[in-house]
Amino acid sequence: MSKPYVIGIDMGGTNTVFGIVDARGAVIASSSIKTQKHHNINDYIDELHHEITRLIEANDATDKIHGIGVGAPNANYFTGYIEENVNLPWPTPIPFAQMLSEKFGIPVAITNDANAAAIGEMTYGAARGIKDFIMITLGTGVGSGIVINGQLVYGHDGNAGELGHLIIKRNNGRLCGCGRTGCLEAYCSATGVARTAREFLEIRTDKSILRNIPVESITSKDVYDAAMAGDKLAKDIFEYTGTLLGEALADMTVFSSPSAFILFGGLSKSGELLMRPLREAMEKNMFPAFKGKVNVLLSELKEADAAVLGASALGWEAKPLVSAPAAAVAASTPITPNV
Amino acid sequence: MSKPYVIGIDMGGTNTVFGIVDARGAVIASSSIKTQKHHNINDYIDELHHEITRLIEANDATDKIHGIGVGAPNANYFTGYIEENVNLPWPTPIPFAQMLSEKFGIPVAITNDANAAAIGEMTYGAARGIKDFIMITLGTGVGSGIVINGQLVYGHDGNAGELGHLIIKRNNGRLCGCGRTGCLEAYCSATGVARTAREFLEIRTDKSILRNIPVESITSKDVYDAAMAGDKLAKDIFEYTGTLLGEALADMTVFSSPSAFILFGGLSKSGELLMRPLREAMEKNMFPAFKGKVNVLLSELKEADAAVLGASALGWEAKPLVSAPAAAVAASTPITPNV
Repeated sequence: MSKPYVIGIDMGGTNTVFGIVDARGAVIASSSIKTQKHHNINDYIDELHHEITRLIEANDATDKIHGIGVGAPNANYFTGYIEENVNLPWPTPIPFAQMLSEKFGIPVAITNDANAAAIGEMTYGAARGIKDFIMITLGTGVGSGIVINGQLVYGHDGNAGELGHLIIKRNNGRLCGCGRTGCLEAYCSATGVARTAREFLEIRTDKSILRNIPVESITSKDVYDAAMAGDKLAKDIFEYTGTLLGEALADMTVFSSPSAFILFGGLSKSGELLMRPLREAMEKNMFPAFKGKVNVLLSELKEADAAVLGASALGWEAKPLVSAPAAAVAASTPITPNV
Repeated sequence: MSKPYVIGIDMGGTNTVFGIVDARGAVIASSSIKTQKHHNINDYIDELHHEITRLIEANDATDKIHGIGVGAPNANYFTGYIEENVNLPWPTPIPFAQMLSEKFGIPVAITNDANAAAIGEMTYGAARGIKDFIMITLGTGVGSGIVINGQLVYGHDGNAGELGHLIIKRNNGRLCGCGRTGCLEAYCSATGVARTAREFLEIRTDKSILRNIPVESITSKDVYDAAMAGDKLAKDIFEYTGTLLGEALADMTVFSSPSAFILFGGLSKSGELLMRPLREAMEKNMFPAFKGKVNVLLSELKEADAAVLGASALGWEAKPLVSAPAAAVAASTPITPNV
């Protein structure tokens, strides 16, 4: 392979992490910059270009980069735009793929973070060899990347896979960041767990370690620690969260009949506290034809590398800009590298 | 084209309708037999073979049949089996594709009726040129066929697209035929509308034409007729049904971001009685990124021909049995005929 590396960039609200990755999924080198440092998007791209170029040169990878893959909030694979995001300091929409591609002279593909995670898992992680699965990212929010018959689902506009915004409480549901009420994300994210804690503490009267923490500052980590220490109320919060998520996974199954769900993100590391009620609720609520058929797996990507790896996998299918002559005849390239 | 025709077979619980279809979707000739007449599946297949052969000979189509497509309840595209069905008089599972293929010496492909309708709509109907859509069949039950990026979604086991069994009432929902409670099908099918009528008549005290009908014999057609005659209670039943369906369509949108839903079946012919509340509820409950982007269309297939046309479209991609030498090298054929 003449160009044996890709660059993976994971743009988060706080940090932008990037790395050089080879075809086997080894992160050769990585570094990061602060996303919020620059008020002008061009300055941000300048610093990103400077730092990545330094990393490339330090690792003897000049002219060896096949493509750049980016996972970014609300990034659209079809248009190459970051469509809108309140957590970024720049006006949207941003033609990010084009801007990066022009700066680097290397093909760039972008997608949202959950889709990048799904591609990473399919290329290097727990979903290798699985053709139909749904990636669920349980972080500050709930994201998803859906793979059907080996292909990521983008939908007619590039925005498919917003399963964090399935309505799981039709009436009297919690207000979600999207402006609607009752979304999965308002219950089964890290912030959702903290909200459940505040709700339980207000409604219930039993003792709990969590009552020692100022109620507005309780985090999902506090709830986890309390539950691991045997706190009944904290354990019930995980029971509630796992049950709601399990019910939702059963509903998702009637759509695409995946053979597996893959959970990723902080909350997915809660172990049996979350997984037992989740599996029980999923099976109990499963449409009969799917009972006993669907696995719930945990991500196999190393946490520190996962986001960069996922984004980098997209770099293998990045195509030159349409303005370049080669693009006119570029055929659809496979999502997995030839290794 | 050396073999310019396909056979479409629509197996229903009562009748099995079949026809000879050309590549433009014209039904050259059609006929039917009674599904329930034979207690032995072999006798049923013998009669089907006899009648279809007669039709082929009468239309000078011998040796001109490219393939046979079948839409049947719970038919699995991957396995070729009818997996289970309480409405058929034969023990399941039935290796139906293989049995038909051996009898006719012609390649056979089978799928469930809703998937067949989606393929028909994509090949000949309202979904021509639409790459991402969801077909919703509103009949005795609620079925669905999901098309993503121009391909029907079968899932890992061939059973994807059971959207009639999304849970729309998590608590205190109606019992569904699948054994669970709160499924979309229990509310937004023809039988669901009749159940809503019985519920409204029991709970409410206002006058209604529907009170003149014995409550257990009320059909969705009775409700439609009453609503068209201006009956307030009957109109409210459609308002309720359309609202629930619209909410469900909004939820389905976050999954695959289709550009259109296509409604098919008896209830879809209720006009604005159903469509106005449906569209309003869908938009009101839509995730912001999808607002104003998703069309709700009605099937464009002629009702008498629709099921046969849909099934026949599958005939173009039917492949010879694996035991035949040709199958070993048969490549994946396009879903649409070359016309």
